[in-house]
Amino acid sequence: MALHQVLHQLSVDTTGRGFVRLDGRLNTWIRSTGMDQGVLHLTCLHTSASLTINENADPRVLVDLDAWMADAVPESRVYRHDDEGPDDMPAHIRTALTSQTLSLSVNNARLLLGTWQAIYLWEHRSAPHRRQIACHLQGEMVEAQRQSQRLNEAIQARHNPEAWATDGGVETNVDLLVDRLHDIADQPG
Amino acid sequence: MALHQVLHQLSVDTTGRGFVRLDGRLNTWIRSTGMDQGVLHLTCLHTSASLTINENADPRVLVDLDAWMADAVPESRVYRHDDEGPDDMPAHIRTALTSQTLSLSVNNARLLLGTWQAIYLWEHRSAPHRRQIACHLQGEMVEAQRQSQRLNEAIQARHNPEAWATDGGVETNVDLLVDRLHDIADQPG
Amino acid sequence: MALHQVLHQLSVDTTGRGFVRLDGRLNTWIRSTGMDQGVLHLTCLHTSASLTINENADPRVLVDLDAWMADAVPESRVYRHDDEGPDDMPAHIRTALTSQTLSLSVNNARLLLGTWQAIYLWEHRSAPHRRQIACHLQGEMVEAQRQSQRLNEAIQARHNPEAWATDGGVETNVDLLVDRLHDIADQPG
Repeated sequence: MALHQVLHQLSVDTTGRGFVRLDGRLNTWIRSTGMDQGVLHLTCLHTSASLTINENADPRVLVDLDAWMADAVPESRVYRHDDEGPDDMPAHIRTALTSQTLSLSVNNARLLLGTWQAIYLWEHRSAPHRRQIACHLQGEMVEAQRQSQRLNEAIQARHNPEAWATDGGVETNVDLLVDRLHDIADQPG
Repeated sequence: MALHQVLHQLSVDTTGRGFVRLDGRLNTWIRSTGMDQGVLHLTCLHTSASLTINENADPRVLVDLDAWMADAVPESRVYRHDDEGPDDMPAHIRTALTSQTLSLSVNNARLLLGTWQAIYLWEHRSAPHRRQIACHLQGEMVEAQRQSQRLNEAIQARHNPEAWATDGGVETNVDLLVDRLHDIADQPG
Repeated sequence: MALHQVLHQLSVDTTGRGFVRLDGRLNTWIRSTGMDQGVLHLTCLHTSASLTINENADPRVLVDLDAWMADAVPESRVYRHDDEGPDDMPAHIRTALTSQTLSLSVNNARLLLGTWQAIYLWEHRSAPHRRQIACHLQGEMVEAQRQSQRLNEAIQARHNPEAWATDGGVETNVDLLVDRLHDIADQPG
């Protein structure tokens, strides 16, 4: 069975500097595609917000992450690019230090993450923004294939045991299953 | 329609420490592959240069990025690995803090980027270098398929309306279209 | 020929803070899949260990990398999240500053890396841990296709030179080759 792809754009509202958790919404979208195994590619389409994977349990981890970043890339530093406010150039540097793209495995129609992992959009500007994330899934319906193949084989074993030899081992999928049901319906009883 | 892939190596000449914009050359290459939707995977094949996505408008953003990095990972620090010059070990650390690989969506035969985003090779060594970027595109010709299918259906609707029923719903692509044209040409007038 | 995928989980034992080289084990696994061209997506399924690509020759590079990181994200800083020991919150921040996912080209059944590049799991905790890496390869058997096509063409050129014209240029793969051999066997001598 061959891979195929779906491209989607996710809109995320932030409340200013800080983290917005994405994995729940991403899993909902993945389920809507019907694919259950593949790779999901995320691109944050901005230069003052980024992506990161970190702890999902203790919210103080995010507070400490934010505080470290605020000290390491301070607003108080003198920047040449300063027309968009003191928080803008630090936001560009913080974006460069974290991830602009992430590629994640999908299995059983869910993101494959560790127990303590969550995916975050990291807003680096002070004011709230509406951010866009490109979500590009390349994958396939592995489980549906297995199910339709099992069903197909069960039907054939009952009604037409020689069909596999005649077919020459063609690929089985839902369309073929429907064709087979039509064939069986057309056969004289 | 199934995904396929093309692998290419891009050669980029740098003029020493700083940024070389890549997205124009990448878009030219993408167009040459004939694919219009997919994911482009970039790997910088070096340990003292890296990849980043940042602001494409005000060049002072890149000056500030470079200045922050020069202060955060200074040449003046004492390093054990010092045989290749004072700029070499800082280049390895700056590479680790930025991206060694990026995966970007392609849509309508172009990189899907935000309005203010550009893709840069970030040269971390002082001297000019020739750098290699692996460019691996996995995608398909979505628009060409749609066009050939529309053309095929239009031809069939005019010349052989029953063909779809006879074909059993096979996949349509340019090769099949050519076959169909041959069939039609072979039919008695 | 269409892309397909294999998903695998790699277990890596660390000896505490430092680097464990992965590319040898990854290449062994890639060979076992039978795919020779594709993209390998790695996800480190933890929030206190990460992935990075850096120098494979002089081990002092890794010592300097580790020392810089220990100074930039010190254990001595006051963190709110401190219940899991003084090395835990620095490990989360160091993870955020490096890569949680990497996507690498595979060509000729090997990772496509630069001469001096190695892929490392970077353990950020002080104690040894068993870490899990999701390895997701999306690719194909390019060389096997080329070989079966060459074989097919050689057989046809000898036994049935007109077959390509009759076939209308269908895709060649091992199944078709076997069919062709059956056809040839069935022909009257």
